[in-house]
Amino acid sequence: MKIKQLGEFGLIDLIKGMLGSGSGVGDDCAILPLSKQNFLLLTCDMLVEDTDFTRQDKPYLVGRKSLGCCLSDIAACGGIPQYAQISLGLSPDMSVSKVRELYRGIISIGKEYKVKIVGGDISRSDKLVIDVGILGLVERRNLARRQGAKIGDIIFVSGKIGGSIYGRHLNFTPRVKEARYLVKNYKVNSMIDISDGLLQDLGHILKQSNRGAILFKDLIPLSVDARSFDEALYMGEDFELLFTLSASEARRLIRLKQNKKFFPIGEIVDKTCGLILLDRRGRRIKIKKPSGYQHF
Amino acid sequence: MKIKQLGEFGLIDLIKGMLGSGSGVGDDCAILPLSKQNFLLLTCDMLVEDTDFTRQDKPYLVGRKSLGCCLSDIAACGGIPQYAQISLGLSPDMSVSKVRELYRGIISIGKEYKVKIVGGDISRSDKLVIDVGILGLVERRNLARRQGAKIGDIIFVSGKIGGSIYGRHLNFTPRVKEARYLVKNYKVNSMIDISDGLLQDLGHILKQSNRGAILFKDLIPLSVDARSFDEALYMGEDFELLFTLSASEARRLIRLKQNKKFFPIGEIVDKTCGLILLDRRGRRIKIKKPSGYQHF
Repeated sequence: MKIKQLGEFGLIDLIKGMLGSGSGVGDDCAILPLSKQNFLLLTCDMLVEDTDFTRQDKPYLVGRKSLGCCLSDIAACGGIPQYAQISLGLSPDMSVSKVRELYRGIISIGKEYKVKIVGGDISRSDKLVIDVGILGLVERRNLARRQGAKIGDIIFVSGKIGGSIYGRHLNFTPRVKEARYLVKNYKVNSMIDISDGLLQDLGHILKQSNRGAILFKDLIPLSVDARSFDEALYMGEDFELLFTLSASEARRLIRLKQNKKFFPIGEIVDKTCGLILLDRRGRRIKIKKPSGYQHF
Repeated sequence: MKIKQLGEFGLIDLIKGMLGSGSGVGDDCAILPLSKQNFLLLTCDMLVEDTDFTRQDKPYLVGRKSLGCCLSDIAACGGIPQYAQISLGLSPDMSVSKVRELYRGIISIGKEYKVKIVGGDISRSDKLVIDVGILGLVERRNLARRQGAKIGDIIFVSGKIGGSIYGRHLNFTPRVKEARYLVKNYKVNSMIDISDGLLQDLGHILKQSNRGAILFKDLIPLSVDARSFDEALYMGEDFELLFTLSASEARRLIRLKQNKKFFPIGEIVDKTCGLILLDRRGRRIKIKKPSGYQHF
């Protein structure tokens, strides 16, 4: 059987099965015991030319995206990013100035989020490959995971979504500060970042938490970039936080005067309800499938 | 200017310059402060099809190599490997059984060295790309670095070298146990693993330590795989440890009855001497250049 027949999630399930339980596959980062107070967070993201960016994209922005994706994963766990390493697959015919621009992007976003770049590796590859590994820290009490959503939780998203692929995916803001604000001031029951599309990533929370959900179509904040509502549901690379709070915590967040960032979009319900999308008249909108971006 | 005109080490110097001092580039691993007693070690290695292995190589062995390279880096710092993450660039047309074999290799070597595989990432790539990131630990007193070689130190290698490219590079033994034995029982003044060739990697120790060296040709242990002596000097991927001990520590290691593994091959001298290779009659053998494998 070929990978394209098995699909990305079939492949991930196969690998998970081989690695066994406790492999850390199932959250945005691996969560490693460090001390009584803290966990280490470890994650990596690989970007490949013509898959995750094109040769025409500005290398400065590609560099920012490569580290930005990892920062978004650390944010989804409520953590503080600390150190990063960069593996590059480079063509001998690539211009040196392109590598310089790539690194300028990596270093600039690294500085913004106080991440130290501590080495990496270089190999030879026809197409540009960038793999960023990142190490972060999170206090045990502030750790956010995909599991933990409870019936009655309100579902929030940290910004407008959809249409990222038309440009924003190269220049998004990883929600590290927002995530830290949330985990320090609220009891976050579950959290993930939207990298594969709202429905697919909500699906991960529901699966890990063993719950269902109702989404209210008119509450989902559509980005100006989105060309259709479906793009907010199925398109990936928004890199916004998707999280759930108990009703009382949610009220506290919604009432907050400064809150212009966190949009309530639905509610966690019993697993048997599945995933339901409702319009303003309470009519059920058929969901094609809780799918989104897949590499295969 | 193109990368192939600048060369691999020119490129690394450029990146080092951009990252600034204290970037951790300059040892086999990034050395990160953890506690009074311990450092964290972080490193990554990227393998690309047709550069670091071929499509004909057994995926099981390619998997073992991918984690093995990282283990060798942790060993070179005297550390204990703990956690690894695997980023894969995969073609949709690759067979699922090939990925399974690749992971079987990764998991088998992981088990041998008690490394837990804790997640990773997948992207789409025509050619197979494997990037392994590894996290390890080393006690401050046991940390080995490239810097620290002293005049009068004896230079050792942990096994026979040369000709690895004919097959051993896919099935080598990362010297984690040997390195732990050394740092726990001897004062190791400097250490590196031979990944780019004996002379080039010794060159790294000499540069970081600000020293020169004399190597004795007839003491260099040639692998049965090597087709010429030059292959022991210039060919990469031996993944043996190259380290230096003071003369008294060296005597202790050489006298050891169980010692069949550590070969003394030369001596650290003043920087002004450069790097000298002597034959059994004390004649100087011209070194082409302390060069070895370079990707560009």
